[in-house]
Amino acid sequence: MQTVAIVGATGAVGAELLAVLEKRNYPVGTLIPMASARSVGTTVRFRGVDVPVRDTNADAFVGVDVVFFSAGASRSREFIPAAIAAGALVVDNSSAFRMADGVPLVVPEVNLDALAQHQGLIANPNCVAAILTVALAPLAKIAPLRRLVISTYQSASGAGARAMEDLRVQTGDYLAGRPVVSRVLKHPFAFNLFSHDRDIEANGYNGEENKVGAEIRKILAQPQLAISTTCVRVPVLRAHSASVNVEFTRPVSVEEARAALASAKGVRLVDDRATNHFPMPLEASGEDDVLVGRLRADPSLATALNVFISGDQLLKGAALNAVQIAEVAKPLAKT
Amino acid sequence: MQTVAIVGATGAVGAELLAVLEKRNYPVGTLIPMASARSVGTTVRFRGVDVPVRDTNADAFVGVDVVFFSAGASRSREFIPAAIAAGALVVDNSSAFRMADGVPLVVPEVNLDALAQHQGLIANPNCVAAILTVALAPLAKIAPLRRLVISTYQSASGAGARAMEDLRVQTGDYLAGRPVVSRVLKHPFAFNLFSHDRDIEANGYNGEENKVGAEIRKILAQPQLAISTTCVRVPVLRAHSASVNVEFTRPVSVEEARAALASAKGVRLVDDRATNHFPMPLEASGEDDVLVGRLRADPSLATALNVFISGDQLLKGAALNAVQIAEVAKPLAKT
Repeated sequence: MQTVAIVGATGAVGAELLAVLEKRNYPVGTLIPMASARSVGTTVRFRGVDVPVRDTNADAFVGVDVVFFSAGASRSREFIPAAIAAGALVVDNSSAFRMADGVPLVVPEVNLDALAQHQGLIANPNCVAAILTVALAPLAKIAPLRRLVISTYQSASGAGARAMEDLRVQTGDYLAGRPVVSRVLKHPFAFNLFSHDRDIEANGYNGEENKVGAEIRKILAQPQLAISTTCVRVPVLRAHSASVNVEFTRPVSVEEARAALASAKGVRLVDDRATNHFPMPLEASGEDDVLVGRLRADPSLATALNVFISGDQLLKGAALNAVQIAEVAKPLAKT
Repeated sequence: MQTVAIVGATGAVGAELLAVLEKRNYPVGTLIPMASARSVGTTVRFRGVDVPVRDTNADAFVGVDVVFFSAGASRSREFIPAAIAAGALVVDNSSAFRMADGVPLVVPEVNLDALAQHQGLIANPNCVAAILTVALAPLAKIAPLRRLVISTYQSASGAGARAMEDLRVQTGDYLAGRPVVSRVLKHPFAFNLFSHDRDIEANGYNGEENKVGAEIRKILAQPQLAISTTCVRVPVLRAHSASVNVEFTRPVSVEEARAALASAKGVRLVDDRATNHFPMPLEASGEDDVLVGRLRADPSLATALNVFISGDQLLKGAALNAVQIAEVAKPLAKT
């Protein structure tokens, strides 16, 4: 049995981490939930027990086997060095170290082999990158990918539990004819959508778009893969979707793609043309599998296919992937 | 002053037609609202007067100057020949005749010249095609377009007033914890999105996607333009959005594109990187202009730009465009 710490245990991903650890029977002997000082005094529930939340501090990692970080990049930068030094295996859900040399960025269905090189820290990808690579890796095995044109439909959960609640509140206010106020994200969210709220960077893309592209390249081990990304938030609660135009180096048939996806780990093919039933975020919510469908030949380019993907942002996009990593990663040998 | 008939006067687009005619001071002398038999006995309000709704019938077009059809393709097929024979100018909002030879498919900002060839009937485009061509035509003047990869974010209004109401009802039920029932469209709509509900056709694309591609080609007079389209319904009430990857025959700079759009008719450039303010359906709702922004160079292809577009589905996507056509089209000479 292991001693497991969660930094950010009271957030949206923290809650899912607790649920996933419990559901998958992860060998948790002792659970140490940590959060910011203002959560001290509260508890989180795990296996029917209320466990007190502790303040995050650098001395708390001694004797801990695994630490899941899910409290944002600055917390990760501040505390991960101490956790590694204490001998813990760290799975970091933040963006802090994802692109760092020597830090594996892992989606177990896709690049499990990258895990072997870890030095105490494994990065959990951005939610869009994790969900998309589960669907893209089986396609990349048919023929090398040349270019991806991605447009996302991202849910409120990607901005945390408060954003989900704000979407509910704003929508209720709208329906009741009350003034609608955005309390978490900048733009109105009720019955609206908007370009992803991360700041625009020098190349004109927002931080989310740049992360998605860079991380897909790293996970697929295709550093030169051409990727164009548009990230959009839609008024959906907890699963992300994406429309992806996938260009290969040679023509790939819909049948080849369907066969590859049907047998791929972590994928559920949802592609019923007769009933117009394809991936939807509501059906992806709460599911471990990434839903993939709307496979069709691209009439505008003989070497391309179109595909539509929905995956639970909090599960495969965050907590589930992190726990899957911890299940298979070997701890560093103690010195 | 003209005698103006509206077939489908009680629908979502019908209501907008009345509002647009009034707002733009269209020279309506006599208004004849028509609908199906079950609406007879009701009235529509125009310039402060309640006007009785009549049954649609082939004898009713005598002496009518202009007829707007907005009651679906089968009504258009049934009654438009009689309206033309009676000497009326017909603007058809349905898909019935859009691709027919000899029927101009017109977005006045884009292909006004096509109007001259009409033979009594002018087709009003599909809402996505109308909105997108307003934004694409100014770009096509910089350099010829080679390929478009389009992913849409389409609102409930495209499926009519009942679908808008159903989205409101489903969402209210969801928030109140009541069972959510889809009464108009097939799939759950509250906090969900789904592939467009039109039937899938032989090529794997749904009817909406095939229409959008074919109509964009016709409006832009580029019969060979390569277009890949993914149409998705999102839980937004009345404006459509689209993420478009625009490939040209040569590299086009963001600055060139921005300048062309800034001076284009029917376009409002909304492209503020500093404040992360870009086109949103809520801001497009009720607006005549199509909002265009998120212009950026595509790192995956030197000859491509990305752009994001929002436009009011009921206005530029339907009623406004139809009235604009009627304002400038010359009636056929009476024989």
